Amino acid sequence: MSLSTCRIKIINGNTCQPMTANINASAQSIKFPSTEIVTVQPESGPESIESFYDEYLAIPGILEQIILDNDSDAFILACWGDPGIEAAREITTKPVIGIAEASLYVANMVAAKWSVVTTLHRVRDMVEKTIVKTGLTDRCASVRTTKLSVLDTEQDRANTLDVLLEASQLAIQTDGAEAICLGCAGMSGLEQQLADRLGVPVIDAVAAAVKMAESLVSLGTHTSKQLTYRAPERKNIKGYPAHYQAENFLH
Amino acid sequence: MSLSTCRIKIINGNTCQPMTANINASAQSIKFPSTEIVTVQPESGPESIESFYDEYLAIPGILEQIILDNDSDAFILACWGDPGIEAAREITTKPVIGIAEASLYVANMVAAKWSVVTTLHRVRDMVEKTIVKTGLTDRCASVRTTKLSVLDTEQDRANTLDVLLEASQLAIQTDGAEAICLGCAGMSGLEQQLADRLGVPVIDAVAAAVKMAESLVSLGTHTSKQLTYRAPERKNIKGYPAHYQAENFLH
Amino acid sequence: MSLSTCRIKIINGNTCQPMTANINASAQSIKFPSTEIVTVQPESGPESIESFYDEYLAIPGILEQIILDNDSDAFILACWGDPGIEAAREITTKPVIGIAEASLYVANMVAAKWSVVTTLHRVRDMVEKTIVKTGLTDRCASVRTTKLSVLDTEQDRANTLDVLLEASQLAIQTDGAEAICLGCAGMSGLEQQLADRLGVPVIDAVAAAVKMAESLVSLGTHTSKQLTYRAPERKNIKGYPAHYQAENFLH
Amino acid sequence: MSLSTCRIKIINGNTCQPMTANINASAQSIKFPSTEIVTVQPESGPESIESFYDEYLAIPGILEQIILDNDSDAFILACWGDPGIEAAREITTKPVIGIAEASLYVANMVAAKWSVVTTLHRVRDMVEKTIVKTGLTDRCASVRTTKLSVLDTEQDRANTLDVLLEASQLAIQTDGAEAICLGCAGMSGLEQQLADRLGVPVIDAVAAAVKMAESLVSLGTHTSKQLTYRAPERKNIKGYPAHYQAENFLH
Amino acid sequence: MSLSTCRIKIINGNTCQPMTANINASAQSIKFPSTEIVTVQPESGPESIESFYDEYLAIPGILEQIILDNDSDAFILACWGDPGIEAAREITTKPVIGIAEASLYVANMVAAKWSVVTTLHRVRDMVEKTIVKTGLTDRCASVRTTKLSVLDTEQDRANTLDVLLEASQLAIQTDGAEAICLGCAGMSGLEQQLADRLGVPVIDAVAAAVKMAESLVSLGTHTSKQLTYRAPERKNIKGYPAHYQAENFLH
Amino acid sequence: MSLSTCRIKIINGNTCQPMTANINASAQSIKFPSTEIVTVQPESGPESIESFYDEYLAIPGILEQIILDNDSDAFILACWGDPGIEAAREITTKPVIGIAEASLYVANMVAAKWSVVTTLHRVRDMVEKTIVKTGLTDRCASVRTTKLSVLDTEQDRANTLDVLLEASQLAIQTDGAEAICLGCAGMSGLEQQLADRLGVPVIDAVAAAVKMAESLVSLGTHTSKQLTYRAPERKNIKGYPAHYQAENFLH
Repeated sequence: MSLSTCRIKIINGNTCQPMTANINASAQSIKFPSTEIVTVQPESGPESIESFYDEYLAIPGILEQIILDNDSDAFILACWGDPGIEAAREITTKPVIGIAEASLYVANMVAAKWSVVTTLHRVRDMVEKTIVKTGLTDRCASVRTTKLSVLDTEQDRANTLDVLLEASQLAIQTDGAEAICLGCAGMSGLEQQLADRLGVPVIDAVAAAVKMAESLVSLGTHTSKQLTYRAPERKNIKGYPAHYQAENFLH
Repeated sequence: MSLSTCRIKIINGNTCQPMTANINASAQSIKFPSTEIVTVQPESGPESIESFYDEYLAIPGILEQIILDNDSDAFILACWGDPGIEAAREITTKPVIGIAEASLYVANMVAAKWSVVTTLHRVRDMVEKTIVKTGLTDRCASVRTTKLSVLDTEQDRANTLDVLLEASQLAIQTDGAEAICLGCAGMSGLEQQLADRLGVPVIDAVAAAVKMAESLVSLGTHTSKQLTYRAPERKNIKGYPAHYQAENFLH
Repeated sequence: MSLSTCRIKIINGNTCQPMTANINASAQSIKFPSTEIVTVQPESGPESIESFYDEYLAIPGILEQIILDNDSDAFILACWGDPGIEAAREITTKPVIGIAEASLYVANMVAAKWSVVTTLHRVRDMVEKTIVKTGLTDRCASVRTTKLSVLDTEQDRANTLDVLLEASQLAIQTDGAEAICLGCAGMSGLEQQLADRLGVPVIDAVAAAVKMAESLVSLGTHTSKQLTYRAPERKNIKGYPAHYQAENFLH
Repeated sequence: MSLSTCRIKIINGNTCQPMTANINASAQSIKFPSTEIVTVQPESGPESIESFYDEYLAIPGILEQIILDNDSDAFILACWGDPGIEAAREITTKPVIGIAEASLYVANMVAAKWSVVTTLHRVRDMVEKTIVKTGLTDRCASVRTTKLSVLDTEQDRANTLDVLLEASQLAIQTDGAEAICLGCAGMSGLEQQLADRLGVPVIDAVAAAVKMAESLVSLGTHTSKQLTYRAPERKNIKGYPAHYQAENFLH
Repeated sequence: MSLSTCRIKIINGNTCQPMTANINASAQSIKFPSTEIVTVQPESGPESIESFYDEYLAIPGILEQIILDNDSDAFILACWGDPGIEAAREITTKPVIGIAEASLYVANMVAAKWSVVTTLHRVRDMVEKTIVKTGLTDRCASVRTTKLSVLDTEQDRANTLDVLLEASQLAIQTDGAEAICLGCAGMSGLEQQLADRLGVPVIDAVAAAVKMAESLVSLGTHTSKQLTYRAPERKNIKGYPAHYQAENFLH
Repeated sequence: MSLSTCRIKIINGNTCQPMTANINASAQSIKFPSTEIVTVQPESGPESIESFYDEYLAIPGILEQIILDNDSDAFILACWGDPGIEAAREITTKPVIGIAEASLYVANMVAAKWSVVTTLHRVRDMVEKTIVKTGLTDRCASVRTTKLSVLDTEQDRANTLDVLLEASQLAIQTDGAEAICLGCAGMSGLEQQLADRLGVPVIDAVAAAVKMAESLVSLGTHTSKQLTYRAPERKNIKGYPAHYQAENFLH
């Protein structure tokens, strides 16, 4: 097979440009040479996702990035929560990968038990629901939340490293974690420093998702349209641009 | 205590006016005399919710109905899927009740096992996820989906009754259901006819939610702001009216 | 519908009169105006339920309070353990509500995770089994037991408050609880003081059950007689008064 | 060690003398030579246990058979539902074995998956709860209920055999059972005929429990008094003979 | 029935002769008088099992002890992990009992919750998988690992006792254990001293398995050959002696 | 990063040369251009794995292929059961991927529910245990076994296609599967024909594993040596060549 067809669009779930740039840098550095990656952010939504409210306001804009795309071979939802992923799978036949699930699959292949280390304490329930949605609760040692806001992870890398180090050590020593999943796209790029200090695998979710997307494109596997993920029914949708109507979908 | 303070706002998740009227009629007929009920629908969103895509596009409009409200003592999300309920609980201290969870609590009090009978086959996964979210999977005998679209349930009541009857009988005889939860707000009003023919309790989710809302208001219990449901962080939100910003919330 | 028909019988599971009086006071203060409440205790059984042994000796007397009743529209089992609730549902078509399950439903509507705070350490297994029976284990943060006997909760309210406060704080800070369910009918009346100090919702199980009973009567929903809760088979029962024989049931 | 000390009391949960005799016959035929077995039935309770109501009325009389016993080395609760077993373990330090749990342990040692085949359809929920209580749900292929009442199993052995054969075949062919647990003490004695015709192990619960009782006595293992099963607190118990008060327990 | 036919072969999973002798001593001291016990060890495999690697290398030799046996009425796999037990059940119709499962059944009959206390920290995952395989996760309070290697448990009994005592106390006080299962055959013989100091039942897995084997032989129950445990298909097997080929099996 | 370092060794779990050739053909056709793949089979073990017995006899030979390898960047265990995978992870720091888990991750990314369609009915329990081990039971719609032996899948491709088609259709129509995982390495190469006829994604486990191996090598993620997968303790191992001793491991 030829790699020349692999074009991946990464959608940062947050409308924060520096985070989009950071995600893009991580992705570009790990991709296979023949893969093309474009990283975007939604036109609408909160600058960071730290609550269910933020997440639900972000989703229509995230979906729009898929609706209006006609070129990509796969999509990555770059927010650890995989926001709107079931809907994303309904509106395209191309593979859609969430960075959360991708990081859990990788962790599952290198560790008997793993923990997710992430941002504000309030997101604990969101993170747990994401793990349940993926189906991998049995292998999860713990979820460790911190005092870091999403934007903190971008703006103060030294402090972020310290906080993640402390939370990860607790996960390893107290909870029995044997690998660490970084639970926020904004933490991308810190995995190597953390792994060096912790002595266990540290999974960057963005990098994991790039590999999963390349894999699915290479396999030629599309999203099942059998039942759950079939295209939405055509119907009137108020208050959204016309391209949100299913009958206007390009694909 | 006095009932005079109980004002409930019911938010139809769909932007379909006849369904709003039907929901309102059911609610008005079951409320306690001193309860006031107002039933509304979002300004934006699909006319019916039958996919994850529909659901996610509906949520911002649903939440707006809470954000802009300063009078209600409780809110009911009238779409069996309780769309956006975690976010709704973040943006108000008033109780927020989903019709799905309300119907499951009522079923749980009158039957050892119950089934949910609902619309299109494609919503099975959504319905199962809603039951998981509520926490009550152990008592669920089955989910029975049908060929009915959401709008069908409003427009052809005779056919709807026939289809629900057939699916319910399968749930009772094959799956061991001892009560039936109607899994769509549009089915409200058919519960008595179905119960008479089936010989088991049939739960109208809208009516169940009205009772739960009256109960919570009477108890004076508010949503916990301890962690998961605390108010969203203040931050910039692109592409939404200013009232969506947390710093502009009225309450 | 008219509220004039709502007559609820609350059955204290313990044969301790002061507790019956306390339960009654809580119930009378929270009921809707048109509801009539009668609170009784069994003729036989232990003065307090603190072991499986106590519970099983209490149940025949609890059931007798339903067998001999011909007037009530709903029954409440007022012991956090819902003793004999499946049997109670077999011997009447009227709704039977346990205070344990009622408190869990209310907690589930206002908090992502909740804990049960209760009496003696030895009841941990009983409390966990009650939560399993209700089906809501996934949302339970923890069960916190204490040194309080059931009668302590009635006799020394200041100490009870202190002990509950300490256990609740541990549940919130260590276990992630966002609301507290009081796991004993004897604690009824302390919920507001606790909520004020803890800053999270505290659910009085008796009050929650009154609301659930009013709800079910208002909905007109009866217990399913489809399979599990159908009336007991007629048969000879040794060593019990004749009214325990199914053929003598009034209803 | 000497076997001469092993005296087992089997308590038929039902007050039906022919069933007591049948249970005794099965037990006597399988016991080790040096074991002494006495089979009794309660002074009070229903002639057969086929509902939660029956079960709860039977338990005080079952417990009395332990309270008044000062000679036995172990007790067997001979009703598939292990009625009151937690309470029985509270009131004696001697091992208490339920026939349900005993049959499941034996099945678990000879088959990857097993089914329970039992009496009336209405007991399904009771049987499932018993399996949950034992902790072995993962290995259960199915519960198959029938039209047989408990007394039928004693009175019409030919019909009982036919009905059990049919239900067992369904369990094997449809549900994937590889062994059958007979879910009623009244079925004791039919296991060999069924096994011969079915070609899979058929577990008589009474025989299994005799072996477990002999095992525990031989091991010298007593019931843990650490927490859950410690002796009941001393307290006033109304309406029961004085020997039910914990301060009058002989042991 | 006659006990004269009960001949049990115990297979130490480790190729460490002193451990075989210790296991044999424990078994001989607990068996019924008419039971004959032979304790062996494999011809090949590691001297102790402390990793998945060790376990998998041990299994072919363990199975050979069954293949070449034509006299025994039951087999016991004497390594807490029940190594290769599914395969052992495929190659004989005689009952095969693992010491792990046997100890869990005994614990389940005397305690509401129990813990497994065992060797090196690294075996935690193996122990948890064994409990999952048996199906009894719900009743497990915790797994407590230590610094003890398998051979340590044989060679330094005083230290072993101290370490087990400390781990058991943590299990009881912190995790809620009400009985302790010794999670290594090498710990056999220490149960009484531990029980005396801890005040809770301590289960020696070897003794428990002897009782289960005697029970199954007395019941005449064989391994189900219905599906999972039917004899292996005949086929070419490279690199093993001819007696490993299914067509050469004696039974 | 450079792809030039990616050398993957695939270990067919069966000692059947034509299957090794078939696996190799599938793998070579799907790999990225710069990946080198070598496919081998063990020196010892059964020609096909269709029972626990077969599996346990195969594992030492599978592990030897890793022990003696000093060149590969990743290992794939090419038998749907991932035989010995925990041990394989102990003896190397290089990533080890099982074809079963790899196929489940891919299925999880393209379908809400999936089924595994596989060989002989007797392997049902093995397949279910593999899914449990991976942690993904919640997303599994069903396991469908057939009359196909492992060698059949190689030798009669037309019949294999028919049988798989029928089983897959049942999985889709009856069990709710939305994608199919082929549960045997011998089925590799049939995925496209099946997908074309079924209209849902069909996952070839060998291809999925190649992609996962390439991903892990590209990410530079090694197996965690924190606890469960650390190198085996050094000890005497009887009856195996010296290279099986941990002190002789090359890496």
